Amino acid sequence: MKKIDVCLSPDLIHLYDVSNLAVVVVDIFRATSCMVTAFGNGAERILPVEDLELCRSKKSEGYLIAAERNGESPDGFDLGNSPFSFQEERIKGAKICVTTTNGTVAIRRSSTSPLLMVGAFLNISKVVERLKNWEGDALVVCAGWKGRPNLEDSLFAGALIEGLEGEYTYADDASLMAMSLYKQAKLDLLNFVKNSSHVQRLKRLGIEKDIEFCLERDMYDVLPILNRDFLTI
Amino acid sequence: MKKIDVCLSPDLIHLYDVSNLAVVVVDIFRATSCMVTAFGNGAERILPVEDLELCRSKKSEGYLIAAERNGESPDGFDLGNSPFSFQEERIKGAKICVTTTNGTVAIRRSSTSPLLMVGAFLNISKVVERLKNWEGDALVVCAGWKGRPNLEDSLFAGALIEGLEGEYTYADDASLMAMSLYKQAKLDLLNFVKNSSHVQRLKRLGIEKDIEFCLERDMYDVLPILNRDFLTI
Repeated sequence: MKKIDVCLSPDLIHLYDVSNLAVVVVDIFRATSCMVTAFGNGAERILPVEDLELCRSKKSEGYLIAAERNGESPDGFDLGNSPFSFQEERIKGAKICVTTTNGTVAIRRSSTSPLLMVGAFLNISKVVERLKNWEGDALVVCAGWKGRPNLEDSLFAGALIEGLEGEYTYADDASLMAMSLYKQAKLDLLNFVKNSSHVQRLKRLGIEKDIEFCLERDMYDVLPILNRDFLTI
Repeated sequence: MKKIDVCLSPDLIHLYDVSNLAVVVVDIFRATSCMVTAFGNGAERILPVEDLELCRSKKSEGYLIAAERNGESPDGFDLGNSPFSFQEERIKGAKICVTTTNGTVAIRRSSTSPLLMVGAFLNISKVVERLKNWEGDALVVCAGWKGRPNLEDSLFAGALIEGLEGEYTYADDASLMAMSLYKQAKLDLLNFVKNSSHVQRLKRLGIEKDIEFCLERDMYDVLPILNRDFLTI
């Protein structure tokens, strides 16, 4: 049977040979949830970059520019890191350049994968469907928080593994732990994550409704995939 | 309240400032379980080293030498990595030099801690007791397996956090995840870990009784602490 593993932090990516694996990058709160939302609302492409100034410079090339650092939006950008700002009319047909604290790092570090997908609860069934049709092993790369594993990305990994039961088996203890956590949490995800450090951090920023939205399943029927530098669907 | 965090892999130790933290290094299968067993059986001191040949060379200085690589014992050493071999009569009063795949790495990387303890289920109450009397924050450093997080060390971290309830609160999501996993597992630890990758690995080596022994609580009333290069109690 095919195997699925979980890299709990981008700082552990050196332990995996992503050049042989389908990779699902996840940053539930909120980078990959925003990307899925953007494509669900008609975005044409997303360019993930790590550098704030590089992102800013893309404005002159016709991009909408979106930035987040430490959970907040720096001044001078068109968009922040709330999924609701990616539901606006101007998203339709837009090219968007995005930089975030954790999510864009996770994408770059996984970019040698032959199939890099962006996953979130918002499009989890699309990720499951694509992996069922993938012939090889897979890895979920959790964006975490500044190198540390986090609860919500680990829970997504567990949910994905559950969705792939019968097609994939867990490769190692990290995937076993993610699946166990998800089984414990799934009846009330929102309540389970409410004590996580990132939710506490986001609550201080006053964005509880973002949290609730990012835990919804299958709001969008899109699967963003990296093609060279760009994400498209 | 004091805070306790969990470093799920020695490859994430750069994210923590251990010079300010009491550290509990754990490698349940089997390095720290063996160390606790050795002190419980009268060992005088343990010198943990990373290099196999350095370990071998200590024989001429009167040490019993113990080595493990990839779960097995290389030829030419007095002791392997089974807790039962540390219950022999020759352990009493011995100086022991130990090298293992994961546990000794975790000790070295944490060695700037002002209080580095060696923990295992076999001495968990002694660890709890010492941390209750420690004035600062604490970190559990899981040895994992070649950089990857593992189930049994994470479960120990969760058990320790549970034992410290009321004295310590979790610092971050890794500690929250460890505690959640332990709560799920604690009624039947042996059954919960039986699917872990390391247990599968050990089973192939034919050492199921080691696994069962390493999950026993409080067999020994000892707390190994690092003093410069040595562990003593």
